Amino acid sequence: MQISELGEFGLIDHLTHGITPQNASTKLGVGDDCAVLSYPDRRVLVTSDMLMEGIHFDLVYTPLKHLGYKAAQVNFSDIYAMNGTPRQLVVSIAVGKRFQVEHLEDLYAGLRLACEERGVDIVGGDTCSSMTGLAISITCIGDAAPEDVVLRSGAQLNDLVCVSGNLGAAYMGLQLMEREKRVFESRPATDVEAAQPDFAGHEYLLERLLKPEARYDIVEQLREAGIRPTAMMDVSDGLSSELLHICKASGCGCRVYEERIPLDYQTALCAEEFNMNVTTCALNGGEDYELLFTVPLTDHDRVAQLKDVKVIGAITKPELGSVLVTRDGQEFPLKAQGFTAF
Amino acid sequence: MQISELGEFGLIDHLTHGITPQNASTKLGVGDDCAVLSYPDRRVLVTSDMLMEGIHFDLVYTPLKHLGYKAAQVNFSDIYAMNGTPRQLVVSIAVGKRFQVEHLEDLYAGLRLACEERGVDIVGGDTCSSMTGLAISITCIGDAAPEDVVLRSGAQLNDLVCVSGNLGAAYMGLQLMEREKRVFESRPATDVEAAQPDFAGHEYLLERLLKPEARYDIVEQLREAGIRPTAMMDVSDGLSSELLHICKASGCGCRVYEERIPLDYQTALCAEEFNMNVTTCALNGGEDYELLFTVPLTDHDRVAQLKDVKVIGAITKPELGSVLVTRDGQEFPLKAQGFTAF
Repeated sequence: MQISELGEFGLIDHLTHGITPQNASTKLGVGDDCAVLSYPDRRVLVTSDMLMEGIHFDLVYTPLKHLGYKAAQVNFSDIYAMNGTPRQLVVSIAVGKRFQVEHLEDLYAGLRLACEERGVDIVGGDTCSSMTGLAISITCIGDAAPEDVVLRSGAQLNDLVCVSGNLGAAYMGLQLMEREKRVFESRPATDVEAAQPDFAGHEYLLERLLKPEARYDIVEQLREAGIRPTAMMDVSDGLSSELLHICKASGCGCRVYEERIPLDYQTALCAEEFNMNVTTCALNGGEDYELLFTVPLTDHDRVAQLKDVKVIGAITKPELGSVLVTRDGQEFPLKAQGFTAF
Repeated sequence: MQISELGEFGLIDHLTHGITPQNASTKLGVGDDCAVLSYPDRRVLVTSDMLMEGIHFDLVYTPLKHLGYKAAQVNFSDIYAMNGTPRQLVVSIAVGKRFQVEHLEDLYAGLRLACEERGVDIVGGDTCSSMTGLAISITCIGDAAPEDVVLRSGAQLNDLVCVSGNLGAAYMGLQLMEREKRVFESRPATDVEAAQPDFAGHEYLLERLLKPEARYDIVEQLREAGIRPTAMMDVSDGLSSELLHICKASGCGCRVYEERIPLDYQTALCAEEFNMNVTTCALNGGEDYELLFTVPLTDHDRVAQLKDVKVIGAITKPELGSVLVTRDGQEFPLKAQGFTAF
């Protein structure tokens, strides 16, 4: 169906049909000039992310439902990184003429699935035309008790530096996708076999790229264990860049150990296949959406009990800089050459 | 200066340098994963708008500073339409390779000017690349006392229908700009004179298009006069479309009078020049950013005292439909053929 058949308001009605707010903080959702929210005893957390076709995603290998799901998760991840809970989502989408209603239904299916899983309300939708590619801008609103909010700036001397999950997998997934795209584009039109991508044994890497899961479970574990991180942020531009952000904001240095950086087996194998250094992928690859946080040294035993969390180093005096200690004991200053959308 | 010289984070630092939060509700602005806000006794209003190059604006005749100013005002307008006060702005911008740091400085200068005038804090900024045109997505957060929030759905039988300012001027400004663009593009390269646009006597129309002012003054006047509108929204897609929104949301009909629709002299003159029906321009032209609202009939005398507000009709039973009564007494159903971004 052509979008023009529904018109702008018909389209928004169609895409948001059946959405009923789940959160007590949502007083009014889609359909007026503004959404109306209420947060009497909480801090309100607001984050916004823009995803541009050709920069942040390639529709050749990104199913629209996955893209919608990921667009929501990327925003949830920023709320978790403040030690908060996502509650509302405002969705703006600009689409070119080649898009039909069914395409937007797929995109919304992914957005709605992610929101349903985490009990988040879609409270606003703006859909317009684009002269060219697809643009998605999402604002997520979340909340936290005032005393629970964790900033980047709270890391203290001797705090432990921790990271969840593993790093570099989404970056390797991206390399794989780009390789298969080149194979696909350079095949003779009659070669059906070359059109079948070869992803066997790499499924996890593709999942990390196409269907990331923001780490709500880590925030929950920390809460249950009674651990309040001193600083936290999500790893979207690569570990190296994020460590430098925390050190700059907290006025400290850090020392992290290469051998402690968590890697998945598939990531390591794939890096070898591409003749890349896997540590570099973990340090500078983007889109991991893991949580990087610091905790007081006295929480060491409790952190060690957490599932899927690894201590990778410690906070130092600022004059010592931000340093990676390699497997053979050499020291290198961390550089923010990470993933960049420029 | 090339954007790549600063990098993404350097650029955001550069553009947001010197911004210090003015509102008590802003606990943390730019620089972390989220902005942190506090609204203990208020409703939180959230609106989001996306502006795409080639759809919502044409850089041939839109100075970037004006574009930034307008992008902020468009969002303020949605907050005023809820009878609220804008407090925070989150800005996402995607730019193509032809953009330099100075271009973004201009855009931000407009955004910052609009925010300074209204005491709004820029609390978040995301800047990334675009494969093609410029895309701006802005989220505005505002507040109102719970009892002050005005929705579209509250219009009651016999309420007066009121509109601020005048309508159709921005639409005529757009026609002028498009005409001059065609003249400019079709001139011989050597014809310097043809490159000088002819806007004499039309300055007000261009200002309405390029530098709209969201009607905070109307919201203030209503407050001071002790008038609480029963329904309100801003006129961004044309009066006709907005009246239908209010009638649909409120489950009523309306009767508005052509002779009561406020028009500026320049709008009428320019419509004649273009051989257009000025009422059609006022009903279906977009981007007026005036306020359309309904008040109880008993507020008639107080509304009549308001500066720059006109009563254009009344709310009727739903079965009577939404009707325009022409100067010669004929009745036509209102149609939402208004300005559309599709």
